[in-house]
Amino acid sequence: MRRTITRAIRYTTPAMTNPTNPIPVLSTENMNPAIKEVQYAVRGPIVARAVEIEQDILKNGSGNYNFESVIKCNIGDAHAMGQAPITFIRQVIAGIVAPEVIPHLPESVQKKCHEILAGCGGKSAGAYSASAGIELIRKNIASYIEKRDGGIKCDWEDVFLSTGASGGIVQCLKMLTFGEGLTRTGVMIPTPQYPLYSASISEFQAVRVNYYLDEETNWSLKIPELERSYEEACKTCTPRVLCIINPGNPTGNVLSRENIEGIVKFAHSKNLFLMADEVYQDNVYDADCKFHSFKKVISELGEPYKSNLMYASFHSTSKGYMGECGLRGGYMELCNWDPEVKIEMIKLLSSRLCPPVTGQAAMNCVVSPPVEGDDVYEQWVDERDGVLADLKVKAKLTADSFNEIPGVSCQSVQGAMYSFPQITMPEKFVKHCEVEGLTPDAVYCMELLEKKGICVVPGSGFGQRPGTHHFRMTILPKKHLMEQVMSGFGEFHNEFCEKWN
Amino acid sequence: MRRTITRAIRYTTPAMTNPTNPIPVLSTENMNPAIKEVQYAVRGPIVARAVEIEQDILKNGSGNYNFESVIKCNIGDAHAMGQAPITFIRQVIAGIVAPEVIPHLPESVQKKCHEILAGCGGKSAGAYSASAGIELIRKNIASYIEKRDGGIKCDWEDVFLSTGASGGIVQCLKMLTFGEGLTRTGVMIPTPQYPLYSASISEFQAVRVNYYLDEETNWSLKIPELERSYEEACKTCTPRVLCIINPGNPTGNVLSRENIEGIVKFAHSKNLFLMADEVYQDNVYDADCKFHSFKKVISELGEPYKSNLMYASFHSTSKGYMGECGLRGGYMELCNWDPEVKIEMIKLLSSRLCPPVTGQAAMNCVVSPPVEGDDVYEQWVDERDGVLADLKVKAKLTADSFNEIPGVSCQSVQGAMYSFPQITMPEKFVKHCEVEGLTPDAVYCMELLEKKGICVVPGSGFGQRPGTHHFRMTILPKKHLMEQVMSGFGEFHNEFCEKWN
Repeated sequence: MRRTITRAIRYTTPAMTNPTNPIPVLSTENMNPAIKEVQYAVRGPIVARAVEIEQDILKNGSGNYNFESVIKCNIGDAHAMGQAPITFIRQVIAGIVAPEVIPHLPESVQKKCHEILAGCGGKSAGAYSASAGIELIRKNIASYIEKRDGGIKCDWEDVFLSTGASGGIVQCLKMLTFGEGLTRTGVMIPTPQYPLYSASISEFQAVRVNYYLDEETNWSLKIPELERSYEEACKTCTPRVLCIINPGNPTGNVLSRENIEGIVKFAHSKNLFLMADEVYQDNVYDADCKFHSFKKVISELGEPYKSNLMYASFHSTSKGYMGECGLRGGYMELCNWDPEVKIEMIKLLSSRLCPPVTGQAAMNCVVSPPVEGDDVYEQWVDERDGVLADLKVKAKLTADSFNEIPGVSCQSVQGAMYSFPQITMPEKFVKHCEVEGLTPDAVYCMELLEKKGICVVPGSGFGQRPGTHHFRMTILPKKHLMEQVMSGFGEFHNEFCEKWN
Repeated sequence: MRRTITRAIRYTTPAMTNPTNPIPVLSTENMNPAIKEVQYAVRGPIVARAVEIEQDILKNGSGNYNFESVIKCNIGDAHAMGQAPITFIRQVIAGIVAPEVIPHLPESVQKKCHEILAGCGGKSAGAYSASAGIELIRKNIASYIEKRDGGIKCDWEDVFLSTGASGGIVQCLKMLTFGEGLTRTGVMIPTPQYPLYSASISEFQAVRVNYYLDEETNWSLKIPELERSYEEACKTCTPRVLCIINPGNPTGNVLSRENIEGIVKFAHSKNLFLMADEVYQDNVYDADCKFHSFKKVISELGEPYKSNLMYASFHSTSKGYMGECGLRGGYMELCNWDPEVKIEMIKLLSSRLCPPVTGQAAMNCVVSPPVEGDDVYEQWVDERDGVLADLKVKAKLTADSFNEIPGVSCQSVQGAMYSFPQITMPEKFVKHCEVEGLTPDAVYCMELLEKKGICVVPGSGFGQRPGTHHFRMTILPKKHLMEQVMSGFGEFHNEFCEKWN
């Protein structure tokens, strides 16, 4: 219908005969339709309402609410929740931005500043870097990966700095998205998933292919489920990409080495490109779990995987112990790529010039931290371990507290920064939502915000098995706030169930 | 052909029967075809060769070359060419990144740091900002625009921070790109143009619609040429967007107010969305020229333009007197947008979380600089005026020097950071290129690099009238280098002509 109208403009030019009232060139009916499909629940309507309430309280006081302030458990934004930054990272960035500060910084920090500046055009953080990032930093990342993976070779020319991990993930997906109808790219993503994936799939008009994580076994990834999902997808598209988030967002699951081996073999057997989102590689809390990088597992599995499986791994400054979200630092390692395809990727990156240099510098601090003997080494260790120990306590506190509440069950938060509890909703409430056309978990989370000032994200924004209801809650608020959140939530859930039973 | 092969994989699964040698999931034949069309000359093969030579000289000395070092005149990267950063901007960023530094900074800088931090989540530059940017900074930008435009109202909710201006331009174009065949979006861009536009048009598979700037009248923009270009484009697509770069890149032209009025009326009559790239708004050197913002002209033209023409204006921290390219700061103002479309835009931005906070802070410094009475006011004025005065001298020097060389003609560099001289190539050379299938200006520029170490970008990367030959050269090298460049170029051109005549 709309298209006909658009065509009419061109041929009968009503815009020219009646220029004061043309059909708008850009409207919700007249725009890139792919963008309309984009959803990003982590900053959706519940978060918008939370911001509104915050501003209302700031202006008019909290008299209209049952709480003093909103506690935002919707987003993995550590500093916003009061986590202190790592001094070393901040000193390095301050130094490269204002070199007159350098002489006042600890000696080992001075050295880092000079190293980074030597890699910058005109020795200034204000110059564009190469599109793939500052060469020195790419080399430091490669050394970090080699060390992390027990000496397995990493070529620095496979490493690309990015604007957060998101920037890299989006570029990579874009490369892989093509075809029409049955040849259109299918992107296999976990359910539940981090909504950057579903949003990008919509934006690039690829086909979303869900595979379900197994909640009962702590959200583990079952190979037969990958098989099922793949076979199903082949009826409507060409699956080309398998996305894995490990440690898991929103699930908090940490994949076992055995599980990763199975995934690698599966991806190879189906000729899939593997995207390994490993931004939580430093966030493992469960003593029985360990982070295994896909790079290491793939390399140790040997051939044909080692040289033939095409994949990418993503990392970020926004998570881990550093939580530097605002600086937008990240990198991707592209393994077994055809050099000519890498050139195509670089061309695309070039048109955006470069990732922010301060974010690149933060990434450098993460991969090339102080070492024993450096004057700031102990401070750095204390700060890093302090943050991680605190997160570990809160990971356990959260899951345990949820599991004490009747009608709520939460898998162990083995890693990452989130819990994803399942809520048994009162039957009457679910029926009511059905009749009214409402999404039960969205209604539930909105009421939790309005009644208790606790802001979480409904499970429907991440995906969940039909008939189940969840939400994602970060473990980032300070411990006393986290306790307040858990008791507030317990009260809310009981009241909610009473109301609907 | 390839599609058939891809389909065959899915049905006969050779990847599974012969997993060691599958057809690669990602290859130059098997990838997003739009990306293959992307070209970005500013960082193309000549620049790659320049980097190679630089590294060779670093390693082996300059013995193999006729020059000591490469002078990079290819990209508007001021700090890389030795321009000193503005102290105020750097102090503010150092302060927000490392608040322990704040007490050591000048008083008025301290105030700025505290203001920005108060607008950050958890008062930390490490927190994500809202997707559209920090509210305080959006408000400061709105005040700046109002002041710049003589009091014309600017709603801060129309202002969106971006990752450089490029980030905003790309998002905006993406919103406007849709349709198939005759309804596909045509994007009118100047010829010559800044290659971000052509690259993004390729990436989004829109239709590139060229309108030629008039070299003879200092690259001015003639309305009949817009009409011609539009009518021509209507045969193959639906022109929806008109891009204007003012001051011009690569041309250095500054549009007159009268010319802008004509453009506005044209855009309105054709119901086009107007994208005003105004990143060089502080870079006007010619005493007879003035920067007129599209916002001001549109508002002062009154109705129907003021309330009906949909447009966006883009600004950046990378140009002007500050040249902060590496921080990736920028903003866009979206005028007369349907609020629901803005919501769609915000949703898209949300999935990328936020522009870098340090870049946002730099943008804040640009729109909210020191004022009279501030302890750093005089330093700031001196630094700003120093940079702009220096650029003004080099703008004149460049055009004048080019015009002294027979066979070279250069329009006055009224603004921006570039000259775009026309070169009369020896006929024999042009014929030789024709026979060999070479692009004359690309060959010429590569030879200029190899012989003199001067790195410029061939005109073909920006677009030029068929049969004419140009290159883009920045005016950023320091004055003594600029003089060296001009004399080196003069020698080269003479030798080149002698060789081919």
